Amino acid sequence: MKKIAVVLCGSGYKDGSEIRESVAVLWGLETLGAQWQCFAPDAPQCDVINCLTGATLPESRNQMVEAARIARGQVAPLASLKAADYDGIILPGGFGAAKNLCNFAFKGMGGEVIPSLKQTLQDFHRVHKPIGAVCIAPAILALAFKGQPLELSVGAECEASRAITGLGHKHIVTQVNECHVDLKNKVVTTPAYMYDNAKLDQLFEGVRRLVGAVVELT
Amino acid sequence: MKKIAVVLCGSGYKDGSEIRESVAVLWGLETLGAQWQCFAPDAPQCDVINCLTGATLPESRNQMVEAARIARGQVAPLASLKAADYDGIILPGGFGAAKNLCNFAFKGMGGEVIPSLKQTLQDFHRVHKPIGAVCIAPAILALAFKGQPLELSVGAECEASRAITGLGHKHIVTQVNECHVDLKNKVVTTPAYMYDNAKLDQLFEGVRRLVGAVVELT
Repeated sequence: MKKIAVVLCGSGYKDGSEIRESVAVLWGLETLGAQWQCFAPDAPQCDVINCLTGATLPESRNQMVEAARIARGQVAPLASLKAADYDGIILPGGFGAAKNLCNFAFKGMGGEVIPSLKQTLQDFHRVHKPIGAVCIAPAILALAFKGQPLELSVGAECEASRAITGLGHKHIVTQVNECHVDLKNKVVTTPAYMYDNAKLDQLFEGVRRLVGAVVELT
Repeated sequence: MKKIAVVLCGSGYKDGSEIRESVAVLWGLETLGAQWQCFAPDAPQCDVINCLTGATLPESRNQMVEAARIARGQVAPLASLKAADYDGIILPGGFGAAKNLCNFAFKGMGGEVIPSLKQTLQDFHRVHKPIGAVCIAPAILALAFKGQPLELSVGAECEASRAITGLGHKHIVTQVNECHVDLKNKVVTTPAYMYDNAKLDQLFEGVRRLVGAVVELT
């Protein structure tokens, strides 16, 4: 049975992991009979946003503790994730992925991935284990693999796709129900809510294809 | 196009709406081409639980604001929900449903549903509009319709099913990928995470059937 690591960073589209994308990944994995374990930084979120009003709240929430809402408790510190223990890794999206797991939201192509995740992604890549990234999470891969050109998709051409291209990667246009497979690098990406008005049946289909490709490439 | 109201009460299985069940309901509705609008009490959660450790946290969170994490902002105050404006109503589960929307978690069959929701459910029932309830949410219906016997399912026989029977309703055993349809009352129920070890593909199938029955009964 395949074992896949899923990297979260809170729970909610404005300050953590996008909830529906994260659930779609877990649903895809369980549908295929794969095992999963969630990981998240044992660290405060970059910020806490009122998802109704968009206001920044004057409080602190821990990324791993909030991720446990999605993971139903099945989440461990990101620092404990070892590539040797898993057959592949998947990163759901959400603004939190661009604020907590890297600083792409603030610095664009000049940003950096948090060191523990950058090292983990490079470890998976070095031993030819597949990496999946949903929505804005391909930007994390673009930053983690500067100088190692990947094929990545965030859907349509947009600011994020231009940053990906600017970092030396190739951007592939995809629709929400599709994923792109970079066979050489074993990197799979799907746009999900990069299309704001995505329908959930289409989004789930794109994520199902991504999960299927990741499991197939293990 | 059918319009369905979805009632949430926070975001997370220990103190709010069960995230995966809520997403499954929205996915089921969008798959069928139905419109949805989430509602939640504009009131503090009964409690805030650390979903990693189970500890009660000394803070306050608003049910509607937290529900916006699942609803991506598309959530309105429960007090504004009128049965005349929607073709049906669905209640996902989670401990929050038994603590925030009623006090079943504390008082069992001696509990009460919060007045605004009780009135709303009775309004939908009176005009023969369908009601769906997932996981523990059938307990809300059992309390809201004392003296008006319904057929309800929370999966296997358990403490909750005995309370349902004790309140004069009939309990129907179902598996996680099934739902029960009380045709006379237009009430549809599916057990979801009442089976702790439910697999997500099975759970989504049960919710897909529930949503299909609710839309069919409009």
